[in-house]
Amino acid sequence: MQTIRVDTPSARYEVFAGSGLLETLAPRMERAVGRLAHPEGRGRRIFVLTSPAIWALWSGSFLRSFAEEPMVLFLPAGEKHKNLRSVEQLLREMVRGGGDRGSVLVAFGGGIVGDVGGFVASIFMRGIPYVQVPTTFLAQVDSSVGGKVGVNLREGKNLAGSFHHPHAVFADIGVLGTLPDRELRAGLMESVKAGIIRDRALVRFMEEHADAALAREPKALERVIATSIRMKAGVVSKDERESGLRMILNFGHTVGHALEQVTGYTAVLHGEAVGWGMVAALELARRRGTISGTQMERLELLIHRYGPLPELNLRAAKVVAATGADKKNIGGVRRFVLPVGIGDAGVVEDVTRAELEAAVEYMLARAKARD
Amino acid sequence: MQTIRVDTPSARYEVFAGSGLLETLAPRMERAVGRLAHPEGRGRRIFVLTSPAIWALWSGSFLRSFAEEPMVLFLPAGEKHKNLRSVEQLLREMVRGGGDRGSVLVAFGGGIVGDVGGFVASIFMRGIPYVQVPTTFLAQVDSSVGGKVGVNLREGKNLAGSFHHPHAVFADIGVLGTLPDRELRAGLMESVKAGIIRDRALVRFMEEHADAALAREPKALERVIATSIRMKAGVVSKDERESGLRMILNFGHTVGHALEQVTGYTAVLHGEAVGWGMVAALELARRRGTISGTQMERLELLIHRYGPLPELNLRAAKVVAATGADKKNIGGVRRFVLPVGIGDAGVVEDVTRAELEAAVEYMLARAKARD
Repeated sequence: MQTIRVDTPSARYEVFAGSGLLETLAPRMERAVGRLAHPEGRGRRIFVLTSPAIWALWSGSFLRSFAEEPMVLFLPAGEKHKNLRSVEQLLREMVRGGGDRGSVLVAFGGGIVGDVGGFVASIFMRGIPYVQVPTTFLAQVDSSVGGKVGVNLREGKNLAGSFHHPHAVFADIGVLGTLPDRELRAGLMESVKAGIIRDRALVRFMEEHADAALAREPKALERVIATSIRMKAGVVSKDERESGLRMILNFGHTVGHALEQVTGYTAVLHGEAVGWGMVAALELARRRGTISGTQMERLELLIHRYGPLPELNLRAAKVVAATGADKKNIGGVRRFVLPVGIGDAGVVEDVTRAELEAAVEYMLARAKARD
Repeated sequence: MQTIRVDTPSARYEVFAGSGLLETLAPRMERAVGRLAHPEGRGRRIFVLTSPAIWALWSGSFLRSFAEEPMVLFLPAGEKHKNLRSVEQLLREMVRGGGDRGSVLVAFGGGIVGDVGGFVASIFMRGIPYVQVPTTFLAQVDSSVGGKVGVNLREGKNLAGSFHHPHAVFADIGVLGTLPDRELRAGLMESVKAGIIRDRALVRFMEEHADAALAREPKALERVIATSIRMKAGVVSKDERESGLRMILNFGHTVGHALEQVTGYTAVLHGEAVGWGMVAALELARRRGTISGTQMERLELLIHRYGPLPELNLRAAKVVAATGADKKNIGGVRRFVLPVGIGDAGVVEDVTRAELEAAVEYMLARAKARD
């Protein structure tokens, strides 16, 4: 098991990555949030937010270490339930279930469960502690760390939310055993991203151990996951609110979000969209000379090694237009994250429409030419 | 004009109390939240959340100092609109109105507008700056300061919310000119509370200047308002999250909330319920000996001086039962704020049901006997 510390101005907590965490959750949670038993003997109310599918697979392991059974709340799978209506329903269930300010919430599921659960915890009686027990690769390396929680509005993704850090994150490698292969591969794109922007050694490790990671060998997975989390934890610790450094985490995301939007958030997984978004960003970086042609080739190969990425049949103009709606554009300024060599990145604000179009066209050509 | 500083671990801001603030709002806001004009010339989007009634009366004064007209959002009057549905609607209007992370919200109205506006600001794109321009006495001395924002669930009041401090509060005495007399008197109960728990000199001032304050003489009102805010700002600065000292602000509120609940939140104004709640708490304190009989008489007289408080025809058992549902009871412990002499207060946890019943019965007898 590896332990990664997150240390921001507003919170300090640990992320644990390894095997066997799920079966020993209660004592570990207790160390993070304080005694689960109430001074007067009554237990603190513990709520578990999860999806029906995850609970069907893992409730036995989850419950093993709890003396008193937690109250289970379900969020149906799918982005369409990540909204304020679900939040309201969950808050009301918690009140009716005896929740108070001393209650604790466990978000046990993928990124959507984590985002909704963290947001519910952030506003239930003005905030209660929560812990993340992410069950997808993507949630383990990305969304469970950093304190960004929230839901979608009809006008766009993640437009309502807050910053609310978990008291701890338990990334259990074992639960990835039931993850569909496509989701694993999509999740690994965030690790590829982590390497490209911040960790040259991770890029090399992922090149050399691609077979082991894709075969879910625990040692390889633990190394990739822990290293990715460590990268994100380091960035978040230095820049909690995304005023500067944290923006580099958006590498591949400007075009990635645009792809998700124009494909309606269903055909393409987030990680896959980021994979293609990174290809576009690499091409833009190559044209600007912040990476060489050789580096470009090497990194594109790495991305496809963890593919296949889905085919795209889109017009470049449509994708470019969709980047304009990205909320990362403060007051309309088009910020863009570009890699600088391998293992470093910077934010530029002067990307022209023509540059962006050329990069998107390159990406779309690759996305069509594959077969 | 008086300036009061709030200084908590998570925020630092100023509260301004005086005349003529509304007409000069834009430059004052600019000092608090930074330039309203955008670096590239486009202005930052400014949203004003208000009620139709307030806007009809005060839009002229409000708009006088703004170069670019802000976008006005309306929240219909009444507690029944203080819910997540209103929040969702407002968030969506802001997205459609071009809001981004650089936008600013002004909550211009009473306590409900402040609570909803602050909450909307706290979750719009994970948080944007907001300023409070409270238009009722109660909102000026109480709800606009301290960062507690939120909405009701069907199961109870203020169950969904967050801590999100304004960048500044502008308490303009002038706007109180159109406030109904009953609301002014109810609001003044929070100032009576401020004096009893923390400021002996305020108690004396309010005794000696009751006529002037009730006649809305600006000098008397400014003094009462600024002193009340200073009390609350001091407490909030020392204990932002209500782990200790801040609880004393709940003096009169345990029984007060119960009264609001059993009367359905419509017959009795919040301040009136707190007025009666203070009478019950004073009686409990007198029985315990933390205040003398003479002090009790003096303080009860002060409360009624700012009355009349509404008649109550209730059974004590029902009121006592309703106190149990108060969310201030962490894990079922019954905390209670008791005055210690005049100008000091403490929190006790060992109040028995019998003590509480006796105090509520005393209060109900007074509430019946008045006429």
